[in-house]
Amino acid sequence: MVKLVFGRFRDSFTLGSVKAYIAEFIATLLFVFAGVGSAVAYGKLTNGAALDPAGLVAVALAHSLALFVGVSMAANVSGGHLNPAVTLGLAVGGYITILTGIFYWVAQLLGSIAACFLLKFVTGGLAIPTHGVAAGLSEVEGAFMEIVITFALVYTVYATAADPRKGPVGTVAPIAIGFIVGANILAAGPFSGGSMNPARSFGPAVAGGNFTGNWVYWVGPLIGGAFAGLVYSSVFIGSYEPIPASNDYA
Amino acid sequence: MVKLVFGRFRDSFTLGSVKAYIAEFIATLLFVFAGVGSAVAYGKLTNGAALDPAGLVAVALAHSLALFVGVSMAANVSGGHLNPAVTLGLAVGGYITILTGIFYWVAQLLGSIAACFLLKFVTGGLAIPTHGVAAGLSEVEGAFMEIVITFALVYTVYATAADPRKGPVGTVAPIAIGFIVGANILAAGPFSGGSMNPARSFGPAVAGGNFTGNWVYWVGPLIGGAFAGLVYSSVFIGSYEPIPASNDYA
Amino acid sequence: MVKLVFGRFRDSFTLGSVKAYIAEFIATLLFVFAGVGSAVAYGKLTNGAALDPAGLVAVALAHSLALFVGVSMAANVSGGHLNPAVTLGLAVGGYITILTGIFYWVAQLLGSIAACFLLKFVTGGLAIPTHGVAAGLSEVEGAFMEIVITFALVYTVYATAADPRKGPVGTVAPIAIGFIVGANILAAGPFSGGSMNPARSFGPAVAGGNFTGNWVYWVGPLIGGAFAGLVYSSVFIGSYEPIPASNDYA
Amino acid sequence: MVKLVFGRFRDSFTLGSVKAYIAEFIATLLFVFAGVGSAVAYGKLTNGAALDPAGLVAVALAHSLALFVGVSMAANVSGGHLNPAVTLGLAVGGYITILTGIFYWVAQLLGSIAACFLLKFVTGGLAIPTHGVAAGLSEVEGAFMEIVITFALVYTVYATAADPRKGPVGTVAPIAIGFIVGANILAAGPFSGGSMNPARSFGPAVAGGNFTGNWVYWVGPLIGGAFAGLVYSSVFIGSYEPIPASNDYA
Repeated sequence: MVKLVFGRFRDSFTLGSVKAYIAEFIATLLFVFAGVGSAVAYGKLTNGAALDPAGLVAVALAHSLALFVGVSMAANVSGGHLNPAVTLGLAVGGYITILTGIFYWVAQLLGSIAACFLLKFVTGGLAIPTHGVAAGLSEVEGAFMEIVITFALVYTVYATAADPRKGPVGTVAPIAIGFIVGANILAAGPFSGGSMNPARSFGPAVAGGNFTGNWVYWVGPLIGGAFAGLVYSSVFIGSYEPIPASNDYA
Repeated sequence: MVKLVFGRFRDSFTLGSVKAYIAEFIATLLFVFAGVGSAVAYGKLTNGAALDPAGLVAVALAHSLALFVGVSMAANVSGGHLNPAVTLGLAVGGYITILTGIFYWVAQLLGSIAACFLLKFVTGGLAIPTHGVAAGLSEVEGAFMEIVITFALVYTVYATAADPRKGPVGTVAPIAIGFIVGANILAAGPFSGGSMNPARSFGPAVAGGNFTGNWVYWVGPLIGGAFAGLVYSSVFIGSYEPIPASNDYA
Repeated sequence: MVKLVFGRFRDSFTLGSVKAYIAEFIATLLFVFAGVGSAVAYGKLTNGAALDPAGLVAVALAHSLALFVGVSMAANVSGGHLNPAVTLGLAVGGYITILTGIFYWVAQLLGSIAACFLLKFVTGGLAIPTHGVAAGLSEVEGAFMEIVITFALVYTVYATAADPRKGPVGTVAPIAIGFIVGANILAAGPFSGGSMNPARSFGPAVAGGNFTGNWVYWVGPLIGGAFAGLVYSSVFIGSYEPIPASNDYA
Repeated sequence: MVKLVFGRFRDSFTLGSVKAYIAEFIATLLFVFAGVGSAVAYGKLTNGAALDPAGLVAVALAHSLALFVGVSMAANVSGGHLNPAVTLGLAVGGYITILTGIFYWVAQLLGSIAACFLLKFVTGGLAIPTHGVAAGLSEVEGAFMEIVITFALVYTVYATAADPRKGPVGTVAPIAIGFIVGANILAAGPFSGGSMNPARSFGPAVAGGNFTGNWVYWVGPLIGGAFAGLVYSSVFIGSYEPIPASNDYA
């Protein structure tokens, strides 16, 4: 069941909370830099050719490996969300307050924007590719794709990191979180792009000044993530003790 | 030796059992969505070209990563089978009753079917590719290939997850289970398709209404999985305590 | 320093020892099936084209993932060698007696041979590719390549699995062992083939009846493995307690 | 805050320190052999063609897997730096003295040089490719790219291995360290080459006698690594106990 808690303002401004926002900012920046960077690199190597299977593997691997590392590097401080859909999904289960979650969102979005401008600078001003739904597919179908794959991602976060009964699976939780994103990009890449993350899609849109279809990567992931939080916490967690805001959920 | 236990009806309808069926349904759905999705994605990127080595890597990686995550996400609740051949293999060693195992099968098959219809919907109605034995190979040879590679998968499940003496290997068990499937697809993909899983093959057959050769992916994996359960539990486990139905075997 | 122990005959025929030989036989069989199978699969997909970078990735991944799983599946019973060079390297440090080691070798070689004949059968009689040194390189240079990369493999076994001070690295030891083989194939594949394992090279030679240059894959790996055992156990382990034969070294 | 400690000469010459230098030498040698070897292998397979996406995947994987293993194999003895930028980054936080760090640098550089000469020998005298900034990019932009990606690497080292509160993430630390390098090469490979490591770039320059632009791979990684050490230790670690030189930071 939904356990949304608004939270008290002062709990979102403790030293621990501010460190958590910094950790989210840096980890999201480094994840987006490698992930978006791999798409820029593909364009550089192929002079802007359409994506082929080897390129899809490269882009999926870069996101997968970088997200695993990004989650690992922030796990001890902020819980390692790096993604507004993950933050919302965990808020639904009561693992973070709405207020603290909003600051997480701000940190994640700023990290992604900073990553994209940095990337533009160090590649000598190359264009930053934005997410978009493939030709032949409607934006609504793209949003449904994002719902399914983000459900998978946030369900993974719950089962391997947030569930108090996770057991030894907890040790490999960051790997599972990174790898489900890799698997889903291999499936969804040629259709919706395989974002699962509003921050991942928003940074390139800002850096490129192109917001066409950006709503798909807000609506899809947020619905999918919230739904996963609802399902997992209702069916598998049941009664639980509330966890203080901005704490490690791992 | 074979330790098949039929089980009591009421043990298969406890709250824990029903949660296990839901966990199997969701995890199989998400695994099949990414795995089959990667094959659809390859067709999209190449306009339906024949599989090439880069595509084989993409498909093997998607199955490998998604199965690792699927096993991890269900491990705490259902043991993370996601595969009728794994369930049968564990039933042979007495790790799950026949009755509960049948409900696992139903959940797995429904999850795979749901994944394929979802995939069809979010890709704008693309055809869902079904498993089939390659030209130049008989279906019997394909079934033997599936026997060998499913033996490897279920043997891995036993050695890394079910064996009470597994030790620290248990922590990486879901990774091992996912990765043996990746390795085997890299070997068997161009021959039998590398299914190792009747549910993985059945969903696309239902969604596409094409059951040609589908028996190969029932007979091969079930024989291979049962045989692995028999060998491992006879040779390496020996005497053991029965484990209650629908419990985590990890 | 060298700690070679011959061992007593009866210690090599305990129930535990025989189980270890069976575990080595099965794990080597499954590893070689996937590894060699990936090379056969490449030939099938490309109609026998020369190896290209995507194919090298496929072959390296298959060996890497399958070896990780093979080591994991045998770790609890035999220590998970799957490779005469690993067995020799561990004998040099006193982790296994010479007599038991010889039975390990027999089990590994039989496993590899069985894998290759099985593979031939399930692929409808395709030729099994054998290891050979690339054109433009002498066999001696190939043997030196195998010495270096097998040194890396056996050094990894020592540092992550055999060293009593391995700490938390021990949990990921099977992954490290599998992944060093993947990395080394990506480097050595186009030169010596990247075997690091006499059993891996001997099975295809038997199945194909072609022993040309097979000595390279005995001399190189055995020298490299023995040297790694000598270096690691002399420099980093120093004084230690002998470990009973046929026990887990992990 | 910066915690640079010069250290006493005799502390850098204990038996443990000398073993640490040997461990760094061997692990760096094996890492560079596989990493640079994969670039040589790509040239061999393609007759020296320009890098394509499949080749980028191969090279990124080789570095990623080999660095994970290299860090694992040295973790128990030297902490597993394998990289002057990591050593500097850890010195900034007081995890290693300057004096011991200098010996680490020497061991790392010698290991990389030895690897490149060995590679030249076992490939029959092929040229060893050196790092260089891509056409169309200035060396300063290349250095900035190296700053960003090395920041990511050393930040990962701090968060997953050095931070005393790392918790279960510590078990997968060597994987995270290897994988961030893989992700970053997938992004930076076509621009700066994706070195993140002065030793990795220096060995090929020595073996090939070509130091053009080599400063980029000293200045960039050292600034990025030192900055990461400064940021992480200031923001997230705060007060701490100094750790004796040449000890495992993991």
